[in-house]
Amino acid sequence: MLPGVGVFGTGATARVLVPLLKSEGFEVHALWGRSEEEASCLAKELDIPFHTSRSDDVLLHQEVDLVCIYIPPSMTRQIAVKALGIGKNVVCEKAATAVDSFKMVAAARYYPQLLSIMGNSLRFLPTFVAMQKLLVEGYVGELQVCDIRVYGPSLLDEAYGWTCEELMGGGGLHTIGSTIIDLVSFLTRARAHRVHGLLRTFVQQNNSIRGIRRVTSDDFCFFQMLMSGKGSCSSGVCCTVTLNFNMPGSFVHEVMVVGSAGRLIARGTELYGQRNGSKKEELLLGDNGWSGPEVKAMSLPQIQGLSSMVKALRQSFQAHEERRSWARGPVAMAPTFEDGLYVQTVVEAIKRSSTSGEWECVEIMREEPDPNHNLCEALQRNKM
Amino acid sequence: MLPGVGVFGTGATARVLVPLLKSEGFEVHALWGRSEEEASCLAKELDIPFHTSRSDDVLLHQEVDLVCIYIPPSMTRQIAVKALGIGKNVVCEKAATAVDSFKMVAAARYYPQLLSIMGNSLRFLPTFVAMQKLLVEGYVGELQVCDIRVYGPSLLDEAYGWTCEELMGGGGLHTIGSTIIDLVSFLTRARAHRVHGLLRTFVQQNNSIRGIRRVTSDDFCFFQMLMSGKGSCSSGVCCTVTLNFNMPGSFVHEVMVVGSAGRLIARGTELYGQRNGSKKEELLLGDNGWSGPEVKAMSLPQIQGLSSMVKALRQSFQAHEERRSWARGPVAMAPTFEDGLYVQTVVEAIKRSSTSGEWECVEIMREEPDPNHNLCEALQRNKM
Repeated sequence: MLPGVGVFGTGATARVLVPLLKSEGFEVHALWGRSEEEASCLAKELDIPFHTSRSDDVLLHQEVDLVCIYIPPSMTRQIAVKALGIGKNVVCEKAATAVDSFKMVAAARYYPQLLSIMGNSLRFLPTFVAMQKLLVEGYVGELQVCDIRVYGPSLLDEAYGWTCEELMGGGGLHTIGSTIIDLVSFLTRARAHRVHGLLRTFVQQNNSIRGIRRVTSDDFCFFQMLMSGKGSCSSGVCCTVTLNFNMPGSFVHEVMVVGSAGRLIARGTELYGQRNGSKKEELLLGDNGWSGPEVKAMSLPQIQGLSSMVKALRQSFQAHEERRSWARGPVAMAPTFEDGLYVQTVVEAIKRSSTSGEWECVEIMREEPDPNHNLCEALQRNKM
Repeated sequence: MLPGVGVFGTGATARVLVPLLKSEGFEVHALWGRSEEEASCLAKELDIPFHTSRSDDVLLHQEVDLVCIYIPPSMTRQIAVKALGIGKNVVCEKAATAVDSFKMVAAARYYPQLLSIMGNSLRFLPTFVAMQKLLVEGYVGELQVCDIRVYGPSLLDEAYGWTCEELMGGGGLHTIGSTIIDLVSFLTRARAHRVHGLLRTFVQQNNSIRGIRRVTSDDFCFFQMLMSGKGSCSSGVCCTVTLNFNMPGSFVHEVMVVGSAGRLIARGTELYGQRNGSKKEELLLGDNGWSGPEVKAMSLPQIQGLSSMVKALRQSFQAHEERRSWARGPVAMAPTFEDGLYVQTVVEAIKRSSTSGEWECVEIMREEPDPNHNLCEALQRNKM
């Protein structure tokens, strides 16, 4: 039986997500928005019976068993951790910092019977499922290089807000780069151990953001990741990513993996391959002719990835009689909160690299940093 | 009147160059090869009346007024400097080191009346001439990013040789990257002041290179250049370049420049553009249907660039009655030996960066390094 859903957020993703949920048979019972007005407006548009600007009203809602959190990164941790504490299943977007991500991991570990997945994933997209399968089967031989680019229009909201602020989790690296970092770890079954990057904000002011206000979030970013796998399989793989959001028009979303025996290229949602012997690319997976919702701010792979995730959620829940129970199988490939922490850690290492100019190590947080850490150190120094 | 030509080299470029020279009306009088056999073989194939393995036989040849040098980088400096000293006009490929490049600059400065240009240039290709013109005219607005990729088959010769050796000037960065570095400085009218890069040799052995022999030259390289222009125009431009020569099949040669108002993209020899307002790319310069010679080891932009250069050489020389005289106009856009030194300096800075992992400054050599430098320092230290 499908659980009732509560949605947090009134942005582009929430606007796409609700119709997708409904078309898979989920009932969306409640919508949360930062202001009563935003919530009311979108609830009316999407025909959601209850709306509010108080998070508890959704979290404690009787009919809500699954909470989908698509809100500014700086608010994600608080809602996600609380939802798990109340016993709700959680699908959410990334948090703003590694510390937040770590707290979410702690909560997810504490409630292992609850579903907790990162919910803006390219992993579910059939294109990348097929790509990963072909990589495992050895289509490209020994993997050498991942070469990825995403070009698109500005990610800034119309009005000044968190999308303009690097420290609030805005910017191409945090928003789109994070989905790429996750995707690469999924495709290569390896993690970045060293990264290097450069971030730029070419457009610091525009028609709606001016005066004393300036954009601090990146609109251009390239980064490199050196991967190290569990086996020898993906060790030594070099990954280069170019993100450019000063290119109005439709998104370019290209993921290429090159190995000793061939290559695979995902252009948008289409998958192409070429083995070293052959003269031409072959189409391995065509465009399925998307007829679902579209928004300007999201690329087709993102939207269709979201759609595939919702399908997987349906399969996961409908296997069970009880509304809150779910089967692991259909969502086994989903990124966990631990994957979310890894991604956040890589994002922060790339930002450090952009400042230091050096290769930075990716070191996953193992315990929560003590807020009194500096104080303790000072005290200890005094004692000595 | 067109000068008689002597060609150094029996490789892919020489093989393409000779027919191009002939079709523009140049007479190729002499061919030099490293071995008598190589020279004889290609001379017969290309119908060149004289061949030799002794460089002086070409340099001192009565009918030769223009020398085209397309030989392994480590040999280039010696022949180029000698040719200028004998009073011949010189078109040549890059040298192996910055010191060699510097010596070539010194020779070119000493004989300013002689033609001395770097002869494997993309600058002459109509695609890039048009791109540069559109950049000056402001098609893309304020330039922000250059994003360039060249993918192709292995650059290694069949047998073990200089192409396998990094120190001999082999590898994707030195061979193809150098043409891109030159192109970017032509397009942006700026030079790299800081660079960062990573080189890899994924294929260290193959069917013909094995046993104790290993390839040391890079088959994969990405690098970033931060540009600084004379004016403010191209300051702050970020340039990212990805080179991958583990991709058999036809070359991918894509040069994209992105600015505040639009972008220009050269795919192969075709030029596309998109202004920020418009929804679609427009074709600005189509493929002219190349019917000249082709070789597997060179991309179409390289071959057609060579062809355009030969055309410019014809225009430059035919303006004058005297065989050795030439007009500056038609070859004004050609890279000089000073440009060659700049390119070589950038190549070496990128290699340093790949080792150090850090951003490296591009510092052009201003005086020849004293071979006794270390000795002098030691003596001075002793004195103190």
